[in-house]
Amino acid sequence: MITSVTNQKVKRIVQLNKKAGERKKEGVFVVEGIKMFLEAPEAMLEEVYVSEGFGEVFCAEAEKGILADKLKRCAYETVSGEVFAKMSDTQSPQGILCVVRQPVYTLGEMTENGRVPLFLVLENLQDPGNLGTVIRTGEGAGVSGILMSRDTVDVYNPKTVRATMGSVYRVPFLYAEDIRAAVRQLKEMGVGIYAAHLKGEKCYDECDYRAPAAFLIGNEGNGLTEETAGLADTYIRIPMGGRLESLNAAVASALLLYAAEGQRRRGGSGKM
Amino acid sequence: MITSVTNQKVKRIVQLNKKAGERKKEGVFVVEGIKMFLEAPEAMLEEVYVSEGFGEVFCAEAEKGILADKLKRCAYETVSGEVFAKMSDTQSPQGILCVVRQPVYTLGEMTENGRVPLFLVLENLQDPGNLGTVIRTGEGAGVSGILMSRDTVDVYNPKTVRATMGSVYRVPFLYAEDIRAAVRQLKEMGVGIYAAHLKGEKCYDECDYRAPAAFLIGNEGNGLTEETAGLADTYIRIPMGGRLESLNAAVASALLLYAAEGQRRRGGSGKM
Repeated sequence: MITSVTNQKVKRIVQLNKKAGERKKEGVFVVEGIKMFLEAPEAMLEEVYVSEGFGEVFCAEAEKGILADKLKRCAYETVSGEVFAKMSDTQSPQGILCVVRQPVYTLGEMTENGRVPLFLVLENLQDPGNLGTVIRTGEGAGVSGILMSRDTVDVYNPKTVRATMGSVYRVPFLYAEDIRAAVRQLKEMGVGIYAAHLKGEKCYDECDYRAPAAFLIGNEGNGLTEETAGLADTYIRIPMGGRLESLNAAVASALLLYAAEGQRRRGGSGKM
Repeated sequence: MITSVTNQKVKRIVQLNKKAGERKKEGVFVVEGIKMFLEAPEAMLEEVYVSEGFGEVFCAEAEKGILADKLKRCAYETVSGEVFAKMSDTQSPQGILCVVRQPVYTLGEMTENGRVPLFLVLENLQDPGNLGTVIRTGEGAGVSGILMSRDTVDVYNPKTVRATMGSVYRVPFLYAEDIRAAVRQLKEMGVGIYAAHLKGEKCYDECDYRAPAAFLIGNEGNGLTEETAGLADTYIRIPMGGRLESLNAAVASALLLYAAEGQRRRGGSGKM
């Protein structure tokens, strides 16, 4: 059992939680909690730490069996409660924490599942919770992949990982060195490009998204850069009542992705 | 100028930021930042504090005129940078902070604007940011009002207020002592009740929301209680691909409210 907060493994986890650079250098990230452990693909699991007394304190009866089985298959280390609190990024640690290898996706792989491509392109999104919610919603709406500009917040930020509720394991994404080049690549693949924009000439639910489509979403405060928005085939807007200037970026993403999901599910003419 | 962090006014602001009970007792809340100051209805503004050097440091040129005008009309107090940092709930304070009187709404008032009623009923929502995003989205979608169970997180939590981006001033809401009694009251008013529920028999976009409608949204982890869901006329579900168990509560609220917004905007048969 690790009982010292100055143990090298403990220090490493703290660094991985704090620093995107460390996560990138090592190609791993940290997840916490029973759900995130249970949903982690075993091939990606590198290290598992459980808090002393974990089995008794933290598990619901129903989970104990599955949890014990998976723990048996992983080499895990026990740490003292004090050490676990040090390693954890949360206020109320759930007693289990894992180091997980970062998956690597390519644009090609994202479209290999035989479904009509549906992309989300995020430019400079900054709120970790927002990004996590976008990924979670993306899984629900059946997104093919999420492309992000390099200045977008890190997917493996602990807050983002938590907000994905496990989708971080399953939704393909990539950071594009040059986001505009990536959008041009989508266009060459025949994907229609829709920019969420206050100047949008069409309401978001007046377009036909049954063909391959990508939605461009910009930074929370400033929206899309003009250069990136300029690559779109169509500017779309989400109607807003009251005196609202914009919607939350995760909410806007959800409305657009689910507009496409609905049209594809219902088939027919696409228009509503 | 207030220069002591132990000044009574400073201590009061700290308490108001920290404690929902204090806010309730005094019937006020705290807002921060230029936008929140500019959008605050003057009749609700009780106190304004600005940080030393506020004018030079924090204002964009375009805002200076309007800001100066509104500041002139309010009695405001200047505090030292150190004192402001103490009063502020944020990491990077924007140099202006106000005490605002809590508005009081009634169910009757919410439906007096002549539009077809559209309600959101929140049961035990716990995440302050989520609640703020829900209120913001509600303004965009044209919600008549938001009803909350008494165990829902406080609207005037500083994180909630920030996430509303000003909608907290404009979207009517109330905490119901008995949320089920409130839902029954809506039913008596002829409002159709739709519960967002994993067991929903209909997709959320297969119902007609052009008549008066209310959506019931439950707690982030547990959803709606059976008793409350049981009051609904219709259980609706949002389709989810992948292995997702649920959507974020603010995202679910947005999809439902905007489904109603879209049907009412487009008119016609309602169905998509």
